[in-house]
Amino acid sequence: MSLPLINKQVFEFTAFTLDSGKTLPYLRLGYETYGRLNAACDNAILIAHHFSGTSHAAGRYSEDDAEPGYWDAIIGPGKAIDTDTHFVIAVDSLCNLMAKDPLVTTTGPSSVEPETGKPYGTRFPVVTIGDFVEAQRLLCDRLGIQRLQAVAGPSMGSMQALEWAVRYPKRVARVIAAISPGFSIDAYLLACLTTWCAPIVLDANYNGGDYYSGPEPLNGLTQAIHMLGLDSLHPDGVRKVFARRWAHRELDPHVSLDHRYAIDRTLDTMSYERAKFADANSFRYIARAVQLFNIEDRLDELSAPVLFIPARSDLIMPPALSEKAADHLRSRGVSADLFVIEGEGGHLDGLLNIGRASSVIRDFLTT
Amino acid sequence: MSLPLINKQVFEFTAFTLDSGKTLPYLRLGYETYGRLNAACDNAILIAHHFSGTSHAAGRYSEDDAEPGYWDAIIGPGKAIDTDTHFVIAVDSLCNLMAKDPLVTTTGPSSVEPETGKPYGTRFPVVTIGDFVEAQRLLCDRLGIQRLQAVAGPSMGSMQALEWAVRYPKRVARVIAAISPGFSIDAYLLACLTTWCAPIVLDANYNGGDYYSGPEPLNGLTQAIHMLGLDSLHPDGVRKVFARRWAHRELDPHVSLDHRYAIDRTLDTMSYERAKFADANSFRYIARAVQLFNIEDRLDELSAPVLFIPARSDLIMPPALSEKAADHLRSRGVSADLFVIEGEGGHLDGLLNIGRASSVIRDFLTT
Repeated sequence: MSLPLINKQVFEFTAFTLDSGKTLPYLRLGYETYGRLNAACDNAILIAHHFSGTSHAAGRYSEDDAEPGYWDAIIGPGKAIDTDTHFVIAVDSLCNLMAKDPLVTTTGPSSVEPETGKPYGTRFPVVTIGDFVEAQRLLCDRLGIQRLQAVAGPSMGSMQALEWAVRYPKRVARVIAAISPGFSIDAYLLACLTTWCAPIVLDANYNGGDYYSGPEPLNGLTQAIHMLGLDSLHPDGVRKVFARRWAHRELDPHVSLDHRYAIDRTLDTMSYERAKFADANSFRYIARAVQLFNIEDRLDELSAPVLFIPARSDLIMPPALSEKAADHLRSRGVSADLFVIEGEGGHLDGLLNIGRASSVIRDFLTT
Repeated sequence: MSLPLINKQVFEFTAFTLDSGKTLPYLRLGYETYGRLNAACDNAILIAHHFSGTSHAAGRYSEDDAEPGYWDAIIGPGKAIDTDTHFVIAVDSLCNLMAKDPLVTTTGPSSVEPETGKPYGTRFPVVTIGDFVEAQRLLCDRLGIQRLQAVAGPSMGSMQALEWAVRYPKRVARVIAAISPGFSIDAYLLACLTTWCAPIVLDANYNGGDYYSGPEPLNGLTQAIHMLGLDSLHPDGVRKVFARRWAHRELDPHVSLDHRYAIDRTLDTMSYERAKFADANSFRYIARAVQLFNIEDRLDELSAPVLFIPARSDLIMPPALSEKAADHLRSRGVSADLFVIEGEGGHLDGLLNIGRASSVIRDFLTT
């Protein structure tokens, strides 16, 4: 097997002004690229990631990598987003959840505040999806890319893609919004995001966000990731995959509250493995950035064709939200296509089964 | 307005042996009755309550009660469960969640352990739905009721109704199983129940369940009730009821992570008002009792006709589970009817919109 070339890099800015008007003294973000930028610099596609994602959108770092990047099914040589012809850029978000992953470079609450020489913690300013986009825009400027063939992403990535299109209508030729909330976050999702954050704040080690010099709130963060994961599935899908079994044959749940079921052990183990590389404050900052997403008042700026790719069994950003957004665009004369990923995988079908949208994406990019 | 007569009482047993083989030295449970037991003692219907419910199934305690009992829409004079002709009994469960409600009498982890003179905490033994049923059976014995016209209940109440029917086939004429999981708890619901308990254990005040002499884990318990409530709704219903609004006009969520949205404030306030009267350990014990529910291996004993009343938009115990259970019973020659409550209220439609099943329940009780 020959590995796709992954070009992992870091870019830096100083004096990065946020939507809030506050200025970060420095910004360091990691990014990956796949394929080659052509001489005209007009073959680039930007991929923005989801809540728990990173810049690792495609490919494997080594032959023995267990999993490739999250959208590897559609990004690569000869794939729907064809790296033989396109230059693909994927950027770590500000406040990236996986801040402790050695392959992630992000600036956020776990970064050192120059003034104090200590991690920011909750002194870090609130950031927005718009701030993520500004960072990506600065990177595009630096790479000499004036116009993107597309901005694409799942979930929180779709928000960045849509935000790009209203901020920089002349620089975005197309938007691919997979498992999208539409043009803003509704009350149900606002409530989910807050609920996911709650275990972090409850963890005594959280200490108001000032935990970097002591034990980290790993239990609370594990639970937050566990809840995010469970809500991102569909109950019917979970029912098919998991059985009613004890976690340990000799530990009967009749005997003690501490004896668990197999599904709890599995979900907790998966969540813990992620939490080890994640930062608790970053979870809260990312959640708030998503909550703040709202382009309803700026839709007049949106002119690029949009391809919505909802997932049938997605409960948190269901197809109806994409349908409503697409209808609105069409009513304003903007081209909007919609393809539904069938399945019982819930919101996660926008990651795990994105391959089912391959031909639709390919067609969308060539029109 | 004339108030229905609510007869609130407490019954006591000593040496109550649990499914686990352990014995509680004493058991005190509250119960309410509506209507009058006839001379033949054959007009009784037992109502079993849901996870966060109590024996207050119907009526109001006073003219200025904000809400009547949870199934008041179907229990009362001239209603589907007609207290002009039937004697209705509703019993507080063991380990009742609302242990601190002055109108609730329960024995559970917050009760005093005679040996130590202190609350049991997690020394209280694990209890089962079967234990709830045994306590109800002893009460029926004491009241001279050999055979119940029906055992009925929503959610956890439906589990008790079904458990009655397999334990005491000769004593149960009918089962009404509203918003039911069917014959056991599947892996998805196992995971939900564990997830709802997590904030309690994370709260530093929980102290391994030994908090009765200090500050209680009120934040964790509030969060647990909040999550239970949110998962008991359907996202589409929430989207219709709540708007995207800030909790306070002057506290912009862009400015601080601590500034909230209106839905968060509303749900937290509702949850907190309940948590003040609830016990954190009891939440965990009730959750485990539900997790343990499983009559799959005893279905040969089930002969009573069953009326399933699922709710269309229920995600945690969806109609498909009732349909599967009904199909199984019919395949064994047992009568099983099914009526779906239409709506977008999720699992809670089995409480809030049970009135829509009135005529079906009335017919079922007279055949």
